[in-house]
Amino acid sequence: MKTTSSGTRERIIEVTSRLLQRQGYEGTAIKQIAQGSGATVSSVYHHFPGGKQELAIAAIRHGDQEFADLLRETLGRSRDPVQAIIACTSALATGLSESDWADGCPVTATALETAGLIPEIQQAVSETYENWQALVHERLRAAGIADAEARDLAVTVVATIEGAEGAAQVFRSERPLHLAGKHLARLLSSYL
Amino acid sequence: MKTTSSGTRERIIEVTSRLLQRQGYEGTAIKQIAQGSGATVSSVYHHFPGGKQELAIAAIRHGDQEFADLLRETLGRSRDPVQAIIACTSALATGLSESDWADGCPVTATALETAGLIPEIQQAVSETYENWQALVHERLRAAGIADAEARDLAVTVVATIEGAEGAAQVFRSERPLHLAGKHLARLLSSYL
Repeated sequence: MKTTSSGTRERIIEVTSRLLQRQGYEGTAIKQIAQGSGATVSSVYHHFPGGKQELAIAAIRHGDQEFADLLRETLGRSRDPVQAIIACTSALATGLSESDWADGCPVTATALETAGLIPEIQQAVSETYENWQALVHERLRAAGIADAEARDLAVTVVATIEGAEGAAQVFRSERPLHLAGKHLARLLSSYL
Repeated sequence: MKTTSSGTRERIIEVTSRLLQRQGYEGTAIKQIAQGSGATVSSVYHHFPGGKQELAIAAIRHGDQEFADLLRETLGRSRDPVQAIIACTSALATGLSESDWADGCPVTATALETAGLIPEIQQAVSETYENWQALVHERLRAAGIADAEARDLAVTVVATIEGAEGAAQVFRSERPLHLAGKHLARLLSSYL
């Protein structure tokens, strides 16, 4: 029973994440989350008594882990951080294209829609961005970039990837992500 | 009467733009747009028979012009494109901070929320991004960067600024925009 219950919880979070990316926070109803995950509305509230806000925060933490996994995997592919950053933006471009440009970043989409309105969501998003920045910071430091420079660069690397992912969705094209990879690689190599 | 009518129309667009930035497309009701602009709901429909979708597209075009004006003004401040890009991100950081981190980019916020759902909005956003890219492209070309490189760089400059603006809102801090300016300046100078 424990497994089924945690399976339901996971499924609810995944469906919430996908719906937040595709139609936003306000556009997503609990009923739709229940339908999408094959659960009843009362089961959704059983797992998430805080309703949509709690669901959105769980989806943001899920998106945090998903992108952190992708960062760890792609940035670890090459010892050369310049090749690693290109592996990262290429993987994002492929994933986005394969989802027909629908599955962008649920974290940023939700953040921009609710910015300043829901402090709990803003807090979860800022922790998420900090986690991603910390991963990039550590990777750049390991490659020999000075600590303070690596910390600053990590902020720009994450912002550029987020911006390019949004542009790729708007243009339905991998190009903005490939260019972001190319230019970030050039920027990083100027510090090595 | 003409002036008053066009004044009302302008006011409706400005209020829509602000509401889209602050609470998203789904979270914004025509009634609220009417209240915020001191108009009746029927007057809003008189000016925008297509309802919320037409209003959102008008707000995107308004955001297009506003950011295009800022780009033209800041990128024109210095003959050195490196100084010019820093003037641009600094102006954005100041504006965002002065609005208590509320007035980010209505275009990107609406784009991410409605991506793939409303083709007319996606079309307006992609035209907007293209306009901004064209302004940056022209500025970089005038500074002596080869045409193809300048076109590619313009995509990354706009994506980085958009990503950094979102991060600045999330962290309620000018830092991501100042770092974006610093790193874009370094990237551009490597092509000069």
